[in-house]
Amino acid sequence: MTAHSKLTARYGTPDISPLTQCNVIIEQLLDHRSVRAFTDRPLPEGTIETLIAAAQSASTSSNLQVWSVLAVQNVDRKKRLSALAGNQAYIHQAPLFLVWLADLSRVSRIAEQQAVELEALPYLESLLLGTIDAALAAQNAVVALESLGLGSVYIGGIRNDIESVAKELALPPQVYPVFGLCVGYPSPDRPTKVKPRLPQQAVLHHETYSATGEEGVLADYDERLGAFYQREGMKASGWSEQVVSRLRSVSSLHGREELLGELARMGFGLR
Amino acid sequence: MTAHSKLTARYGTPDISPLTQCNVIIEQLLDHRSVRAFTDRPLPEGTIETLIAAAQSASTSSNLQVWSVLAVQNVDRKKRLSALAGNQAYIHQAPLFLVWLADLSRVSRIAEQQAVELEALPYLESLLLGTIDAALAAQNAVVALESLGLGSVYIGGIRNDIESVAKELALPPQVYPVFGLCVGYPSPDRPTKVKPRLPQQAVLHHETYSATGEEGVLADYDERLGAFYQREGMKASGWSEQVVSRLRSVSSLHGREELLGELARMGFGLR
Repeated sequence: MTAHSKLTARYGTPDISPLTQCNVIIEQLLDHRSVRAFTDRPLPEGTIETLIAAAQSASTSSNLQVWSVLAVQNVDRKKRLSALAGNQAYIHQAPLFLVWLADLSRVSRIAEQQAVELEALPYLESLLLGTIDAALAAQNAVVALESLGLGSVYIGGIRNDIESVAKELALPPQVYPVFGLCVGYPSPDRPTKVKPRLPQQAVLHHETYSATGEEGVLADYDERLGAFYQREGMKASGWSEQVVSRLRSVSSLHGREELLGELARMGFGLR
Repeated sequence: MTAHSKLTARYGTPDISPLTQCNVIIEQLLDHRSVRAFTDRPLPEGTIETLIAAAQSASTSSNLQVWSVLAVQNVDRKKRLSALAGNQAYIHQAPLFLVWLADLSRVSRIAEQQAVELEALPYLESLLLGTIDAALAAQNAVVALESLGLGSVYIGGIRNDIESVAKELALPPQVYPVFGLCVGYPSPDRPTKVKPRLPQQAVLHHETYSATGEEGVLADYDERLGAFYQREGMKASGWSEQVVSRLRSVSSLHGREELLGELARMGFGLR
């Protein structure tokens, strides 16, 4: 597969200018797809350590490193986490389930030892710091695992009931699970395709934000995504339809409407 | 430089087991460093489009794509943004300044057109969705730009005064700048070293969270980081000391203590 065919798959249209610069790394990034079916093949020894070294190499705000990661391999625990995260079977089928944590507890323990109060901690900003740190780290792990022939899928459902997840994983106060990540070898029986994304014009702005011409761009995308689903033998709904049906009712949050209260009970200041 | 020497630089110690698996992509990830000095060399045409294609290839929750990015190249605008983000000179020295946005406005515009209310939107969960989406996308862009010989540094200071940034960039309601990213060719006059991170034992937990033995691990890291700063000719303070001095007073937030109120005024529900 050429770089250009990867680009046309990414945008769901052959009508796109080739990238002026490309290489094997960019080709791998373009070729990303979420994997939701895994083989039984165990991960080679040392895989977790390799992924975490890649994750730790990502940037972290002021080198605070306010994140941690939990590697879950125990089948029963994976099943209990799966039940908490919306009952997605691939969570316990994947040999490895990583839970990425925003972790303000480590810096709090250090301050406690020195008998210092961290006045800058109980703010929404700290929640964002930990969340962003965890996300940058996790994405590096995803790039690394794909380079090793592994596949993965992020599990936002881990936020459906963060208090129960915290109990299952013995999380101390000021730690919350940002998302999970299933990791394993992709099943050849259920290959997944690259899902087309919005045209660049919809997400990329120059100098100032502008939504001018957006309607036409989104209509194009609705068509491209519908055609993609049709090719895949699925119900051909457009993106606009999906977005609205996903967000129109609180029930689609599956418990995440309680996040603010739960985080407060879990020791986050959130001022 | 061998893969193993990259790993020892990453952890600031020669006393570390080699990775069992490695390749050019993982080596590039290990070798990441933030770049804060750039040459005048302009970016080749098409660079922005390449980086955004990589960014859009990252996972996004339920394919909602609740992020956008602003490419700022105008020198005066970069200077004004630099002033708002803590006066860091490299913001206007870099040929390209990307502002990564959590963007709930696009889905809101779609719903408005269909005269549907998105009841699931005004929750903290939506802020996290947009923040995580933006972070995963940005990290892919960083991996892509480093593969092209470019360097970058994240600018969290863009959150110091998000209302003024929103005004400068004409952001509509329900959009906030998560972080900036300076992009350019690294200046050979001021090469940066890989900064050692916490030992894996401090961030990686198995099955359940445990801080047992953490004190010794952190003491080791304080020593390694101090030695790194000394080698670099800087004041040799340990990590624990840095963390505490960074977080002990609200003044270190440089305005980010107002984020909650600002986001509310900018149209985020945050229930």
